[in-house]
Amino acid sequence: MAILKVNVPERSYPIHVGSGLLTNWELIRGSIRGSEVFVISDEVVASLYLDQLVGGLSDLKVICKVLPVGEGTKNLSTVSELFEVMLKASCSRSVTVIALGGGVVGDIAGFVAACYQRGVDFLQVPTTLLAQVDSAVGGKTGVNHALGKNMIGAFHQPTCVISDIDTLSTLDSRQLSAGLAEVIKYGLIRDPIFLDWLSENISSLLDYDKEMLTEAIIRCCGIKAELVAADERETGHRALLNLGHTFGHAIETELGYDRLMHGEAVAIGLVMAAEMSQRLGWINMDEVDQIRDLLSRANLPVTRPPTMTAESFLRHMVRDKKVSRGRIRLVLLESLGCARLVSDYPDDILKEVLELN
Amino acid sequence: MAILKVNVPERSYPIHVGSGLLTNWELIRGSIRGSEVFVISDEVVASLYLDQLVGGLSDLKVICKVLPVGEGTKNLSTVSELFEVMLKASCSRSVTVIALGGGVVGDIAGFVAACYQRGVDFLQVPTTLLAQVDSAVGGKTGVNHALGKNMIGAFHQPTCVISDIDTLSTLDSRQLSAGLAEVIKYGLIRDPIFLDWLSENISSLLDYDKEMLTEAIIRCCGIKAELVAADERETGHRALLNLGHTFGHAIETELGYDRLMHGEAVAIGLVMAAEMSQRLGWINMDEVDQIRDLLSRANLPVTRPPTMTAESFLRHMVRDKKVSRGRIRLVLLESLGCARLVSDYPDDILKEVLELN
Repeated sequence: MAILKVNVPERSYPIHVGSGLLTNWELIRGSIRGSEVFVISDEVVASLYLDQLVGGLSDLKVICKVLPVGEGTKNLSTVSELFEVMLKASCSRSVTVIALGGGVVGDIAGFVAACYQRGVDFLQVPTTLLAQVDSAVGGKTGVNHALGKNMIGAFHQPTCVISDIDTLSTLDSRQLSAGLAEVIKYGLIRDPIFLDWLSENISSLLDYDKEMLTEAIIRCCGIKAELVAADERETGHRALLNLGHTFGHAIETELGYDRLMHGEAVAIGLVMAAEMSQRLGWINMDEVDQIRDLLSRANLPVTRPPTMTAESFLRHMVRDKKVSRGRIRLVLLESLGCARLVSDYPDDILKEVLELN
Repeated sequence: MAILKVNVPERSYPIHVGSGLLTNWELIRGSIRGSEVFVISDEVVASLYLDQLVGGLSDLKVICKVLPVGEGTKNLSTVSELFEVMLKASCSRSVTVIALGGGVVGDIAGFVAACYQRGVDFLQVPTTLLAQVDSAVGGKTGVNHALGKNMIGAFHQPTCVISDIDTLSTLDSRQLSAGLAEVIKYGLIRDPIFLDWLSENISSLLDYDKEMLTEAIIRCCGIKAELVAADERETGHRALLNLGHTFGHAIETELGYDRLMHGEAVAIGLVMAAEMSQRLGWINMDEVDQIRDLLSRANLPVTRPPTMTAESFLRHMVRDKKVSRGRIRLVLLESLGCARLVSDYPDDILKEVLELN
């Protein structure tokens, strides 16, 4: 088992990555402070792993709530339901909320933990590649609003992240690919050597090679931990993690959250960010092709939905959280392996990119 | 104008107390960082003061939402409505949310500011005595749930508190008295000299004497700033501010939030805390009478609703945020002017106090 550490102001917390962690009672019990836990999961994950997880918690008061699968539940009304369950069970302020599932479950559960009685302990047990490399680490929690993705939320760091890589074996191939979109993102942002490694090993990763997956997860979490430690509340550097996301969120909001998986929308967004970077003269056409090719080999979509116009992109992008003084700020690529937050781009270049098809 | 400072980890913020502050444009404009504001108020306060406040903000993008009056609006569905207004207006992450009103408006607006895009600037402009001495200072924000008061919320410090004491002149006498319950609470918790001063000057305060009210507000804010600085997240000392509140919240939850004002429920709670402290041998019967007498002279209720049984109290009290390891922790009085958080009291003494009538 590998252990990484995330340092945030006033405290730090560990990320455990390895095999057999879901039944590592010592680790799990040692990560819970009080005598009550509230486990939030979804129907698919719960049927596979809930019994395993709660099996070692028999000395605690355990409450569970299983949500329907999908981004469609990630809204305030689900949050309200979860508060109701906790209050009916008289959960105290020393309860630990446990997220057992992917990014959607983690984001909802984290927000519930952030707001229940103004904040309780939160344990992340991510079961998808996307959650293990990205959403479970860093303390961003929240839900969607019909008018925008992740518009309602809080920064609430987990007390601990436990990533059992065995759970990846039950992902379907589409989910695995969606996770790889975020993995590729890390290489593009900050690590050209990792990007080369990914290009060489993408087929082993798609074959669920555990050793390779573990290596990729640790590499991604290391990059994320570094950026989060430098900038917990995303006032600067942390925004680089949003490479591809401003375009991706616009696609998700336009299509509805259940049409494309988050990682798929990000993949398209990564291509758009690359195209814009090329038009600014920062990377060349070969490099754009290289990115598009790697994403395609990971079985990810690389072309935007034909129904989306430049206007529909802009309508959603002006609501992006990185908008500052009326200006849409974009994360773009200075080179492969080096991202930058930009607001002083020519508007017509953005428009050109949005109109491409 | 007096300026106090609240020191919380990583930053501090000022509390301005004085006359004419609502039209002190320099002060108000200087407290807003971006170019957008979202003002939240209620029908009564908005009709009196909204034009004054926004009069000086004409160079900014100003959005307003006026809520119905009363604790009945302090719930998640109002919060959801407010997010909708902000998203429709394309408010960015650099918006400043301004609370213009009493405790209810401040608590809701603060929670909205805490969660909109994971946190935006928040300016408190409290217009009631209760908000000026208590709820606007210290960063507690949140809403009620049908199953418990203030169960959903966040710690989110304002960037600044602006308390214009001129607004107190439009409070009705019941609201003024409700604020005095919290003022008396501060004396009981931490300041016997202030308690004597209150006993001498309660009639001037009830007569809206501006000088006296200013002095009382500054004294209360000073005590609160000290306790908050020592313990922003209420892991210890800050809990003393809840003197009377565990009993009071139970009454509010049982009766519904619109029957008694918060300060009135707190007044009854203060008497119950005194009665329990007396039974523990900490204060004597004369001192209990002295507290009851001061609250009565402030036109506050001192007897609990006749319909409430010990069982109904306990049913709500077990959900109190101070419950720890299944134990209801209570703030009680070691002496007049010195409160203490206790969990090792005999249960039958609590039961006796709850059964008194």
